[in-house]
Amino acid sequence: MIRTTTVAGAVALLATLLASPAVLAQGAASDAAETHGTMPPAQQSYQGAPSPLANEPMYQSANPKAPKMTQAEFELGRKTYFERCAGCHGVLRKGATGKPLTPDITLSKGTDYLKVFISYGSPAGMPNWLTSGELDEKTVDIMARYIQQDPPQPPEFGLAQMKQTWKVLVPPEKRPTRKMNKFNIENIFSTTLRDAGEIALIDGDSKQIISVIKTGYAVHISRTSASGRYLFVIGRDAKINMIDLWMEHPETVAEIRVGLEARSVETSKYKGYEDKLAIAGTYWPPQFTIMDGDTLEPKKIVATRGMVVGTQEYHPEPRVASIVASHYKPEFIVNVKETGKTLMVDYSNLDALKMTEIGSAPFLHDGGWDATKRYFFVAANQSNKITVIDAKEDKLAAIVEVGKIPHPGRGANFVHPKFGPVWATGHLGDETISLIGTDPVKHKQYAFKEVAKLTGQGGGNLFLKSHPKSQHLYVDTPLNPDPALSQSVAVYDVKNLDKGFTVLPIAQWAGLGDDGAKRVVQPEFNKAGDEVWFSVWSAKNKQSALVVVDDKTLKLKAVIKDPRLITPTGHFNIFNTQHDIY
Amino acid sequence: MIRTTTVAGAVALLATLLASPAVLAQGAASDAAETHGTMPPAQQSYQGAPSPLANEPMYQSANPKAPKMTQAEFELGRKTYFERCAGCHGVLRKGATGKPLTPDITLSKGTDYLKVFISYGSPAGMPNWLTSGELDEKTVDIMARYIQQDPPQPPEFGLAQMKQTWKVLVPPEKRPTRKMNKFNIENIFSTTLRDAGEIALIDGDSKQIISVIKTGYAVHISRTSASGRYLFVIGRDAKINMIDLWMEHPETVAEIRVGLEARSVETSKYKGYEDKLAIAGTYWPPQFTIMDGDTLEPKKIVATRGMVVGTQEYHPEPRVASIVASHYKPEFIVNVKETGKTLMVDYSNLDALKMTEIGSAPFLHDGGWDATKRYFFVAANQSNKITVIDAKEDKLAAIVEVGKIPHPGRGANFVHPKFGPVWATGHLGDETISLIGTDPVKHKQYAFKEVAKLTGQGGGNLFLKSHPKSQHLYVDTPLNPDPALSQSVAVYDVKNLDKGFTVLPIAQWAGLGDDGAKRVVQPEFNKAGDEVWFSVWSAKNKQSALVVVDDKTLKLKAVIKDPRLITPTGHFNIFNTQHDIY
Repeated sequence: MIRTTTVAGAVALLATLLASPAVLAQGAASDAAETHGTMPPAQQSYQGAPSPLANEPMYQSANPKAPKMTQAEFELGRKTYFERCAGCHGVLRKGATGKPLTPDITLSKGTDYLKVFISYGSPAGMPNWLTSGELDEKTVDIMARYIQQDPPQPPEFGLAQMKQTWKVLVPPEKRPTRKMNKFNIENIFSTTLRDAGEIALIDGDSKQIISVIKTGYAVHISRTSASGRYLFVIGRDAKINMIDLWMEHPETVAEIRVGLEARSVETSKYKGYEDKLAIAGTYWPPQFTIMDGDTLEPKKIVATRGMVVGTQEYHPEPRVASIVASHYKPEFIVNVKETGKTLMVDYSNLDALKMTEIGSAPFLHDGGWDATKRYFFVAANQSNKITVIDAKEDKLAAIVEVGKIPHPGRGANFVHPKFGPVWATGHLGDETISLIGTDPVKHKQYAFKEVAKLTGQGGGNLFLKSHPKSQHLYVDTPLNPDPALSQSVAVYDVKNLDKGFTVLPIAQWAGLGDDGAKRVVQPEFNKAGDEVWFSVWSAKNKQSALVVVDDKTLKLKAVIKDPRLITPTGHFNIFNTQHDIY
Repeated sequence: MIRTTTVAGAVALLATLLASPAVLAQGAASDAAETHGTMPPAQQSYQGAPSPLANEPMYQSANPKAPKMTQAEFELGRKTYFERCAGCHGVLRKGATGKPLTPDITLSKGTDYLKVFISYGSPAGMPNWLTSGELDEKTVDIMARYIQQDPPQPPEFGLAQMKQTWKVLVPPEKRPTRKMNKFNIENIFSTTLRDAGEIALIDGDSKQIISVIKTGYAVHISRTSASGRYLFVIGRDAKINMIDLWMEHPETVAEIRVGLEARSVETSKYKGYEDKLAIAGTYWPPQFTIMDGDTLEPKKIVATRGMVVGTQEYHPEPRVASIVASHYKPEFIVNVKETGKTLMVDYSNLDALKMTEIGSAPFLHDGGWDATKRYFFVAANQSNKITVIDAKEDKLAAIVEVGKIPHPGRGANFVHPKFGPVWATGHLGDETISLIGTDPVKHKQYAFKEVAKLTGQGGGNLFLKSHPKSQHLYVDTPLNPDPALSQSVAVYDVKNLDKGFTVLPIAQWAGLGDDGAKRVVQPEFNKAGDEVWFSVWSAKNKQSALVVVDDKTLKLKAVIKDPRLITPTGHFNIFNTQHDIY
């Protein structure tokens, strides 16, 4: 199978590049790579967070040929599998970025072989669970027997289940008809407070916390409606909160769960459809749901189970990764991970839903627009490729080979002195930053090619960012095992890239002392484009902070500390998110 | 669940209407209803044919809570399930036209309860397997225990599997460049020789058999390419034969298997795409495959697993029923049974496949065009509805309530003296023929409404037919338990419908004697529209025949008998199939 080989290669290389494969190899290959701004402090498991599926009831049968297990052992095996293994090997164990582990395969290996593999790992990317101290001998033995049993089947989540979780807390007719507060809404930041299951709304002008709002578990992203009025956040547990920023005290006005595990939410942005619809994609069940943009009422559910691009073999669990709204058409652009397909979902008529399926490469993940918002750049992360989708023509524009495990977030756009407009991605698996030309009109020879590779501080990058008004490119390295790197960011002058980067000691500037691991994650510009915000993410029981840097001078401008800022990770400026400025 | 209730109602009514529910209830609800012209003689199981899945190897695990079974019992249970039960309850036992039978449900019922149900049936449509003599007590006991085990999972069938079965026997460059025989190709009939796994090509002018060609098992339909040169047939085992009618001796030039069980094949007919592509839909795996029209090389596989219309709950096994090629656009119209969705599949760019999904009602099955070929009428058979799809606008035109379990085949078009152009369907579950207005321009008040119900000979109709040059409508009743009805057809004068029908004793005209059950099935016009052909289908070891009737006089014109005509069922005139004339 092509994809397993590719993944294995990528992960092996990652393991070589990074100092501590036991801590990072699998993390980068799975959960951390899928986690915008929700990366784990070192003292946690490197799995970004346990899958919410770990606690779901499931129908389960045992394989009579499999080794015997007690019910307690079985339950521990199931929980551990969803916490540690499902991210790579898949909920159904049919293989995703990791190899398949169905009983037809594992039974023929036998318990002893499996125990060795689990204990000591493999150069292909399997972590050394026993020798790293992550699992004890007893648990290794349980896991070796567990994966010879039949995989339990998590429940489906259809319209009836969604409606049971759907609440309109403030109906549209009871909401304000104009802005009732004095906040400069366009400069508000929505910051994930990961382990608290909350987000903080922070006034970008005053740096004060406006409110802390209860949400789903470990909110993955925040998205702004086309008008800028509504904020949508989605937790890993697939709970969506819709927050009205016009209220005197912005609060959740509607909420719903659209599945059991999720990563993405977006709203309709095409002219005439502003604020009309919302969409969310789920990891389990593998599907996406289109909702009413006013109330989150679920309207249309579409399954993504289908054929993998290239091999055209059936995959039972193609997870929905990033979703963006087109500016060219009434379409959502839905990226399906395991099948390597981008779905152009025309939302103009939900009764006759039209979809165009563009195959490129597994495993599609995160991405962003070029500056013109015609071309969408999405990472096929374990394939080491960036796929370019032409949202005007609804077709594949190019597939670009880049570094090891690209993880752009939304990427960064700037004008290169030689190559013209470029879009940049960093990588989890190496220290490079790839620049891709985006202008097929005036810079045709560079368009959709990797025109340059910058050398950064090291591997383990999650996000990079620039802004039309800035001449800087900021690159974080939170997953690098070296604290000097994970606690600082590199800054490039985009007009003088040959000069290399300047290092900003963000965590040091936060002044949190030496107590506990801290990681610096996700540069995010304010609306004016003259400040860059970073999260300094400490453990749940430690103090964290946000650090604000002056973009012109690269000097510290402010440190935001507050007891309520528990494990801040991703953060999103309302205006920049609304208009896809990055 | 709405669909189970509806089905139960329909089947119960069918059981009441027909004399022998033990023989017909289940058959009508499942396999027979899905079987164009492949209906069983009485001495066979009423299941049209055992599912080809009965002999497929499958991964299987046992449920530890389920009653113990020996391996031999288990194998018998599995085989019997696929032969008798899968048609209604689904391969995965998640329920289709019958109720779900997964272990979470069956274990709570227990063996004794299940044995009673299997033995004596239910008014909701479950047959009385023991008291009808179909199963003995031992087998009933085995089945009661078997359905408490986990359902075995039949294998997937992706590109690699298809390519293993794909053979180009005569490459395009070695085929004739002009017609090399003297047959009047447009008046050839392709007749399924069901139990022989063959088709007969019969010269419609001379009534002579041109050749008998080895095919898949129980060929379901024959379809002609847009040019009329190629004939495509598909067996229930999903084997496709592509036959070149230009050859001196027409033979298979390419073949492939596209799955494990199938019903439908079609070719591209839109201007500029004539003979370019072929498509086939499968019951298992639930998917369709687009192939090269010259060679049957598989190009694109699309899974149909997804959400049921209305409830929007996930269905793991939405089978692909009828497929037709649009004359208005480069589109295939793919009807998915369990989800109740019609997929308008744009084949103009397979690299960016565009599909429009139109939901109407489960369980979409067979259907045909109106005379203008703009509107496609498809039976939602267990929902007792006809869905009308507008192939120009790619939208739902109407859903029309009709009689019990409509089974139109391709339906019949004629001009009604009062209502203008109408399309007609018969029913498996009652004796009526529904006429639906098809002209929204000049007869707007009647368009897409059931404008009249004719009363036929009885329930158990499979096919009806008319022709633009005929003023007759022929209606068969092969599934009626009364031999007088199953061996004759009703004929209406479409200009004098009030006069009722004339009965033609087709089987009697065949002169096969009294030995064994015979059924008369599928009226089919010749090219000129002045003859109607019928199959007189006897058992495999008995003599069968084709009977040709003069359309003007309604007199016997010819009887075709030949030892090679073993179990003839469906038959298709090349020209009428090519141009969708019915």
